Amino acid sequence: MAVVEVTIVPLGTGETSLSQYVADCHHVINKYNVTFQLTPMSTVFEGDLDFILKIIKEMHEIPFDKGVMRVSTTIKIDDRRDKNGTIEQKINSVKEKL
Amino acid sequence: MAVVEVTIVPLGTGETSLSQYVADCHHVINKYNVTFQLTPMSTVFEGDLDFILKIIKEMHEIPFDKGVMRVSTTIKIDDRRDKNGTIEQKINSVKEKL
Amino acid sequence: MAVVEVTIVPLGTGETSLSQYVADCHHVINKYNVTFQLTPMSTVFEGDLDFILKIIKEMHEIPFDKGVMRVSTTIKIDDRRDKNGTIEQKINSVKEKL
Amino acid sequence: MAVVEVTIVPLGTGETSLSQYVADCHHVINKYNVTFQLTPMSTVFEGDLDFILKIIKEMHEIPFDKGVMRVSTTIKIDDRRDKNGTIEQKINSVKEKL
Repeated sequence: MAVVEVTIVPLGTGETSLSQYVADCHHVINKYNVTFQLTPMSTVFEGDLDFILKIIKEMHEIPFDKGVMRVSTTIKIDDRRDKNGTIEQKINSVKEKL
Repeated sequence: MAVVEVTIVPLGTGETSLSQYVADCHHVINKYNVTFQLTPMSTVFEGDLDFILKIIKEMHEIPFDKGVMRVSTTIKIDDRRDKNGTIEQKINSVKEKL
Repeated sequence: MAVVEVTIVPLGTGETSLSQYVADCHHVINKYNVTFQLTPMSTVFEGDLDFILKIIKEMHEIPFDKGVMRVSTTIKIDDRRDKNGTIEQKINSVKEKL
Repeated sequence: MAVVEVTIVPLGTGETSLSQYVADCHHVINKYNVTFQLTPMSTVFEGDLDFILKIIKEMHEIPFDKGVMRVSTTIKIDDRRDKNGTIEQKINSVKEKL
């Protein structure tokens, strides 16, 4: 189980607003049974790393499908094998220490 | 107004768990009147860029204060000047398109 | 063709030095015929995105093979389809404007 | 002494090419006596953290000065206090293990 953060940024679009691209990428997520959280700067997934990377690669294609010619995608993987890291466990771990 | 994401990772600590460090860094935030959100992978702030960078620099020192000798800090700034970008506005912008 | 930057950070190792892990990860790269550049903060690849992601996934496993229990891997993809983006072209593009 | 990587990306420019913006940001660097390296994905500095952040904040303003309305800037700080981390030392540390 990994927790994986992704940000997909289309470049050279001519508009400062990117939320329509984010929404279009999220339509990909809805096709899969995967736990995720939308944050102000990214989308965070939890689950099997290969499965999540497959979803991210599909999301990364969306702006190109809409005519964008350059996409900058950042993926941050937190892969922990001594413990079952999940979105909820990570947040709770911090909160109970606050 | 900028939206700024930060992740502070102590290196060479000998333990895989980092939540105590995150919690300690958050005690810095509580000293300030600043809007923020804890995500599974980071902390996201909104507000004046210089003010947020000042808080982040103070947070970055916390692991060193606790004896850590190497800290990896990632800061991602989303600075928009045509519109008042906030945490709530960014999330809502996507949600209303879904 | 994409240009892809990767950083693989083992967590909880008990030592601040990480260069041995970076060197071990690089032994994976040497098995493949791929163009790459070592930078002070990362490794940068150029080539087919799927091929590079395959190499990165193999590199990501190396610290686990050596007993590490948590690995933080960051991947940054610059995927351009209007032009053949390469490491050399990106650097030269900037240098000729300086 | 810290090693700090920065990437400054103007959004909504209408052109996929960003090298002119990178070059313009580099004119800021030339005003200062600072060690840096241009990589295919970023600029890497070494030196005093506060000094480098001051330079980065000045670079971050350059696209706005040229009319851009949204800028995404990523800063990655590798701050080591048990050893004098430099660009050269980091690269050599890996190379001598290869």
